[in-house]
Amino acid sequence: MAYDLYVITDETIGRGLSHAELARRAVAGGADAVQLRDKRLSGRKLFDAASEIREVTHDAGALFIVNDRLDVALAVGADGVHLGESDLPIGHARRLAPPGFVIGASVGSVATAVRAREEGADYVALSPTFATGSKDDAGPGHGLAVLSAIRAAVPLPLVAIGGITAGNVSDVIAAGADGVAVISAIVGQEDVTAAARDLRNRIAVAKAGRR
Amino acid sequence: MAYDLYVITDETIGRGLSHAELARRAVAGGADAVQLRDKRLSGRKLFDAASEIREVTHDAGALFIVNDRLDVALAVGADGVHLGESDLPIGHARRLAPPGFVIGASVGSVATAVRAREEGADYVALSPTFATGSKDDAGPGHGLAVLSAIRAAVPLPLVAIGGITAGNVSDVIAAGADGVAVISAIVGQEDVTAAARDLRNRIAVAKAGRR
Ligand code: NI
Repeated sequence: MAYDLYVITDETIGRGLSHAELARRAVAGGADAVQLRDKRLSGRKLFDAASEIREVTHDAGALFIVNDRLDVALAVGADGVHLGESDLPIGHARRLAPPGFVIGASVGSVATAVRAREEGADYVALSPTFATGSKDDAGPGHGLAVLSAIRAAVPLPLVAIGGITAGNVSDVIAAGADGVAVISAIVGQEDVTAAARDLRNRIAVAKAGRR
Repeated sequence: MAYDLYVITDETIGRGLSHAELARRAVAGGADAVQLRDKRLSGRKLFDAASEIREVTHDAGALFIVNDRLDVALAVGADGVHLGESDLPIGHARRLAPPGFVIGASVGSVATAVRAREEGADYVALSPTFATGSKDDAGPGHGLAVLSAIRAAVPLPLVAIGGITAGNVSDVIAAGADGVAVISAIVGQEDVTAAARDLRNRIAVAKAGRR
């Protein structure tokens, strides 16, 4: 599973583009994973959007993760679910999910990352790594020192989310992230595909420099 | 499965009582089924409330149904899920649910009731049967003629929901409902248990008179 460039769709900053169209443009630029996150949508509307993104990501060979709603993820055949602190408990999701189903967890410290792994998470996302305007509930950033500490303590894929830009992505990778999850740095850009391609290149260069 | 008295918890009209406390008082008065419905809650908060209601209903031998969130229903070991028009599609829920898991569907006509049965619903709820102030999205009532028409056409347990009171429950049962689902007629009353007991008695009398 590659999480190098992990794009979270957001219709509210997506210039009128649908979740599926944002996903299509992002994977065209090389996004490895797409997460559908929209707390405003009804179960049915989320299901409909997820069904569309499942097609887009399947055709592109990208991972597809649904935020919070495990039932929607399972119903559309998504690859996994991403769980934040206010979502279903990780352990319960693990018991309901079939083998191979990916469960990602938002964490804010080494302790919560360790616990997420114990409860069955397949990857952890430090959220927010930097302060951000994209997620209303995100708060101040935890910073690269916490990112590196999690890297050292938890043997799971580690994604940085929150405030990642073309300007700081190299530092984030250098600090130990396996990938970065972004909203506005891609979905909020005029040319979504070009923004994805640019970020993906920067990640590849930073990873090459880390070896 | 008995659906005679089916109570939907609602904290917003419950005089400060929690979902679980409302459920406890309702089953103490003889409620056969409890549905947790709260579109405001996060996945985690809904899970927490559902876990509590699962205990209350289990101890009382009452059915426990979660609205919309199949994942939460499965995670807490609820007996079933209730799906409205803006929730997950019935057929997809059926495929994800284990054998014996109850799937209920809101319907508004004979045609939607027939389709719900074809898609795998275990019971149908005519919603709203009468106009109601409890659910913002409910609209005008479909009435007892539609209820009777569904009764004649669809061989599934039939629940009437919306605008049911102590004053009209006998007519609803006489028109062919197997049970009534209520919010304000029980959850909004000063004495929840007494209101449940009264409604349950009226349903029993009406059913006896129907034979
Ligand atoms: Ni929701």
